Amino acid sequence: MSRPLDSGPTAAPEPAPDGGDTTRERILTAAMEEFARHGIAGARVDRIAKLARTSKERVYAHFRGKEALYAHLAERELAVIAEATRMTPADLPGYAGRLFDYFTARPDHQRLIAWGRLELSGSGATDDDPTQAIIARKVDQLRQAQQAGRLTAAWDPVDILALVNQIAMTWAGQPELTASAAEHAADPTTAARRAAVVTAVQSLFPRSS
Amino acid sequence: MSRPLDSGPTAAPEPAPDGGDTTRERILTAAMEEFARHGIAGARVDRIAKLARTSKERVYAHFRGKEALYAHLAERELAVIAEATRMTPADLPGYAGRLFDYFTARPDHQRLIAWGRLELSGSGATDDDPTQAIIARKVDQLRQAQQAGRLTAAWDPVDILALVNQIAMTWAGQPELTASAAEHAADPTTAARRAAVVTAVQSLFPRSS
Repeated sequence: MSRPLDSGPTAAPEPAPDGGDTTRERILTAAMEEFARHGIAGARVDRIAKLARTSKERVYAHFRGKEALYAHLAERELAVIAEATRMTPADLPGYAGRLFDYFTARPDHQRLIAWGRLELSGSGATDDDPTQAIIARKVDQLRQAQQAGRLTAAWDPVDILALVNQIAMTWAGQPELTASAAEHAADPTTAARRAAVVTAVQSLFPRSS
Repeated sequence: MSRPLDSGPTAAPEPAPDGGDTTRERILTAAMEEFARHGIAGARVDRIAKLARTSKERVYAHFRGKEALYAHLAERELAVIAEATRMTPADLPGYAGRLFDYFTARPDHQRLIAWGRLELSGSGATDDDPTQAIIARKVDQLRQAQQAGRLTAAWDPVDILALVNQIAMTWAGQPELTASAAEHAADPTTAARRAAVVTAVQSLFPRSS
């Protein structure tokens, strides 16, 4: 944090081998773009380096390799989403709306996660996996809300979490339907798609008043 | 169709350059496995050829290239799904259950489609695109059911289609939650996950009795 801010799009090589936050941040920004576009197997460290205006060697000095870089980004992204959308067990429709807004504004973030689901599937989730820790915490929050009478107890909390996440991602996850909605829906706006998502969650898991 | 059935796992090269249905079918089966595992960019025609017990040249003789092979498989798969799961506008919970069963039994088919969504996004859907044609037909069926009073008219039919598809894929689409359900759900069985999906669709879009 002691280094000055990025001084602009200069191509000059940076001297300090111990790097600085700006190089590291530029690498992460470039990697987000590269992974969102090409996935993990398809991403190329030399393209990331070029986009970050640094060298391949510097990328490897900051991150062990492409997979470690992806894992770092995905973990950070999950924490950012959790913080930005904040699950509220007593207002799941509101939470679904925030998830919808987050990914509508950031399709590349949705793609980053979707690639990992495909490319890393079967790599064996464990409880100390940060994704599993986030899920376990949310399931716990939902269960507590059920016990406190602030959320319907008719569903298993794991099913609630899975359904709310999934419904919130209805449009982000089915790009082939977006074209169809634009053409066939009576109201083709994003606001109408958002309203349907929020209404669906409200019908299943109503806000506690 | 005039050639005899595949005579078993012989590695002998086939003589006829105009091929036969069995070579073509073996290529398609091998390609399904290869694409499901590695995606389109990651798939390798030489691996497909080896798995299909034929040559790279024969693969190219049957299909123009890797992308054409993927497009053929994806289009065929969509038709097979539509046929196997048959959308019934007056019984959308039943349809969701069939989709759930189809993809639970065939995770590789779900992966085949998921790769295409990521890798081919933005390649410009048009109305003569077979996916768009299938979607348009389903939206039409839903609209007719609404007009006949066999389906709630409170939703845009495009939203209904998007939500039902998405809810049916709740577990196939979120592998990171499957581990959590196995550990945290009161009833960890697949039947319990299926019941939640069907109940959710029934709550939103009830069967007409």
